[in-house]
Amino acid sequence: MGLCRYRAGMKHALSVTRDADFSAWYQSVIAEGDLAEESGVRGCMVIRPWGYGIWERIQRLLDDRIKATGHENCYFPLFIPLSYFEKEAEHVDGFAKEMAVVTHHRLIADGKGGLVPDPEAKLEEPLVVRPTSETVIGTAFARWVQSWRDLPVLINQWANVVRWEMRTRMFLRTAEFLWQEGHTAHATVDEARAETLQMLEVYRSFAEDCLAMHVIAGEKPENERFPGAVETYSIEGMMQDGKALQAGTSHFLGDNFAKAQNIRFQNAEGGLDFAQTTSWGVSTRMIGAMIMVHGDDDGMRVPPKVAPWQVVIVPMLRDQPEDEALLAYCRDLQKELVGQSALGEPIRAMVDARAQKAATKRWGWVKKGAPVVIEVGGRDMAGGNVSVIRRDRLYREDGKLDSVVQPRGDFVSGVEALLADIQGELHRESTERLKAQIVPVDDWAGVEAHFAEGQKNPGWVDVRWAKPTGEELEQVVEKLKGLKLTIRNAPMGQTGCDDGPCIFTGREAVERVLIGRAY
Amino acid sequence: MGLCRYRAGMKHALSVTRDADFSAWYQSVIAEGDLAEESGVRGCMVIRPWGYGIWERIQRLLDDRIKATGHENCYFPLFIPLSYFEKEAEHVDGFAKEMAVVTHHRLIADGKGGLVPDPEAKLEEPLVVRPTSETVIGTAFARWVQSWRDLPVLINQWANVVRWEMRTRMFLRTAEFLWQEGHTAHATVDEARAETLQMLEVYRSFAEDCLAMHVIAGEKPENERFPGAVETYSIEGMMQDGKALQAGTSHFLGDNFAKAQNIRFQNAEGGLDFAQTTSWGVSTRMIGAMIMVHGDDDGMRVPPKVAPWQVVIVPMLRDQPEDEALLAYCRDLQKELVGQSALGEPIRAMVDARAQKAATKRWGWVKKGAPVVIEVGGRDMAGGNVSVIRRDRLYREDGKLDSVVQPRGDFVSGVEALLADIQGELHRESTERLKAQIVPVDDWAGVEAHFAEGQKNPGWVDVRWAKPTGEELEQVVEKLKGLKLTIRNAPMGQTGCDDGPCIFTGREAVERVLIGRAY
Repeated sequence: MGLCRYRAGMKHALSVTRDADFSAWYQSVIAEGDLAEESGVRGCMVIRPWGYGIWERIQRLLDDRIKATGHENCYFPLFIPLSYFEKEAEHVDGFAKEMAVVTHHRLIADGKGGLVPDPEAKLEEPLVVRPTSETVIGTAFARWVQSWRDLPVLINQWANVVRWEMRTRMFLRTAEFLWQEGHTAHATVDEARAETLQMLEVYRSFAEDCLAMHVIAGEKPENERFPGAVETYSIEGMMQDGKALQAGTSHFLGDNFAKAQNIRFQNAEGGLDFAQTTSWGVSTRMIGAMIMVHGDDDGMRVPPKVAPWQVVIVPMLRDQPEDEALLAYCRDLQKELVGQSALGEPIRAMVDARAQKAATKRWGWVKKGAPVVIEVGGRDMAGGNVSVIRRDRLYREDGKLDSVVQPRGDFVSGVEALLADIQGELHRESTERLKAQIVPVDDWAGVEAHFAEGQKNPGWVDVRWAKPTGEELEQVVEKLKGLKLTIRNAPMGQTGCDDGPCIFTGREAVERVLIGRAY
Repeated sequence: MGLCRYRAGMKHALSVTRDADFSAWYQSVIAEGDLAEESGVRGCMVIRPWGYGIWERIQRLLDDRIKATGHENCYFPLFIPLSYFEKEAEHVDGFAKEMAVVTHHRLIADGKGGLVPDPEAKLEEPLVVRPTSETVIGTAFARWVQSWRDLPVLINQWANVVRWEMRTRMFLRTAEFLWQEGHTAHATVDEARAETLQMLEVYRSFAEDCLAMHVIAGEKPENERFPGAVETYSIEGMMQDGKALQAGTSHFLGDNFAKAQNIRFQNAEGGLDFAQTTSWGVSTRMIGAMIMVHGDDDGMRVPPKVAPWQVVIVPMLRDQPEDEALLAYCRDLQKELVGQSALGEPIRAMVDARAQKAATKRWGWVKKGAPVVIEVGGRDMAGGNVSVIRRDRLYREDGKLDSVVQPRGDFVSGVEALLADIQGELHRESTERLKAQIVPVDDWAGVEAHFAEGQKNPGWVDVRWAKPTGEELEQVVEKLKGLKLTIRNAPMGQTGCDDGPCIFTGREAVERVLIGRAY
């Protein structure tokens, strides 16, 4: 049973390391781990079974939390008439430059063996493929809401959306992506803002508990708000290259969309008020974030809670009559495992009985990031043992693969704790990394020094600021742009900031914000 | 506690009966049961929480069966380049007339306060919004399949698709709809055909077991095949107005798509073969079918297995201090119920604590079709009782609402059997109706007589035929068209047909086919 590395002379399963080229490494994790691939359609990817399986786990777990907070799922149209957009000026400005537009509803032969849109079938009003659904859902809310008794309306949908991005990167920025978008309407500003913060907290705790990804929840600066929002909040994750990735947003929209879509209700006193609305979403981008948080030079490491298979059992088949007994032993083990629970759900265990070399299968699952890989050879079976590889700690100190032979019964009785431990370890690593990579800085010179050229992995800085707005903020943004920096967010839970002035304006600081490079 | 009917003078909760106007009744079930509504976007509907909740149940249960038969979920692009379609001539002919075409990727101001597609942002190659994904998935299969070892490829996706229908009807025919589409590739014709029939059987048993809908599985005649298919199979349901509804299809595609998309593999002997492919799908149409199979003049009746809530508990709140104790009693009951299982899953029970009149809530749930509605008033609580309404048998023989006062403990211990009984009764009704509405007919004159004008609910006829093809079949189709009839399918499991000649050609019959009017 070969414990040697994947290929002779290679230290790790991937041909490129994070250190050598983080961006190439990212693509390589996706390709080698069979997560997704280019589709041949501009900007659109194919999400392969392992990648989609992770998305299904995200959907299942997040959907439970969205429902537990009182929201119901609906489905709204993919197409949005142009006129719906025109009503909210800021919103349309934010999206007009990247919208896919449907103009025809039929094709005809072009006379040269090909097809063209039929000029006779031109739509009177072009339809936009939804980049987000505030306008079309707001139109429905306007029908549903007449009285304060109809409020709140708490809706979510799981859907595909399209934003015509010029430079795309799998999972992070694709023309089409999958997401959930929550939309709610409330009678008062306080309720709507409480909803916005509640969903921010749902996202934060989901990222921590399920994705094992430490994130910072906070408010975005004015210039980073969702088009049409009054306040935008985000969760920001720390990637291993020190860049930030916005992994979810929650928006308080005030009455901007209610005015544009005419969502009005009779209040308890008989007067007519506009509703206060919110929206919030996370997308397949989360998978990109997880890759850059948990992946290593051997590929992806999927946290057990969102792993499609938590335990993969690989029988060392040899195309011999003994194979049958080996397979039976493995299936028996699988049956034992799926009858048990770990992390609050039945264990997801499978037997990889494909006719491939055991080493190829092992390294395939390592690259995919299955949390636990069990190998069973004839000797293991004879001794009632299994060989256990945990993906989060692949190597021993001497650099050899850490495959531990264990009595099968011990493995089974310890698997619940093992999976919980892997989940916890990934979270601990992510938390430590984030904390280590945020540095408090006291002035602009400090920021410049921190992000000076040649600093490979500078992480973020944590600075005081006076929360400037308008033109003053624009100047700050320009200044940061020179260093390729953006303000990520102002972390929640701050109780003032009195240890010095704003590093940009010199005025009294009101809070601290995080600044870094970002995806 | 009013047991009187919904509104004075009305016999039923809906204002239109099936008998009076089946089509208006259908719309009314959807509207009054809050299943869906027009969206304002041409041909697209909004699926509301109760309707979407049914779809989520369908997804969950069917997805389990699709995975249990070895398929994995993926996600493929929404957009398909025109050139992908041009490769399969029959396929493009079948869909070109109803495709939404994206031609631009940006909007600009039109100078009159509105927006128009930016002429500078015209796509070089128009993109079609997928009407079905054989072409784009086939292109991926061509990348994935090199050797016989890579086969079979067994893939499914849950997605939205768009077909530009001119006359739309909610759930049955909408421009955008939701579905699952399975796509597989195999080394041999036998394997691919076996897969096609396996998935037909998955659909059939799912419709029977989960939707409580008796259906006939069989092969479609040549003229009803999916564009590009070698064989098409369907399940056909019997609606209460005697019309057929095709509720799912499974296609054996031969090597037609493999040739168009170049899905080739090296066989075990070293030669190069084209793969044999299949595709199969069911959609939100199933919800339309369930409405027309199970609905009655009081609205929808949802089979317990797919009901978002199986037991709805309605406290008879009176805006009095006693309300609190009543609510506690109801929540306690809910807790007891959700801790139990029925039909193989934890029971889905909720308390409807909204500030509305109890009668309004009761009839709201009746119209939605919740299988069991429990009402609890002060007197019920004092006696340790509940009042139970089962949706499948709403009225007593004397025409009064059948609300049965029962000791709470009896209800709880009997609820598992009750839900199973309701599921079974709906299925029994559907089976009996289908069987009663199919009549064997021996010749064309018999068909004409059966479908003569004025026959309100003729159902289907079951006739012998010689399975004509080509021009001969076209003549049959034309003849049937005169009576607004179509051949639904030739039921599976036939072992020949030797009791007389084909009713169309007079030649020796080879099988029996079902003929009827259809949605």
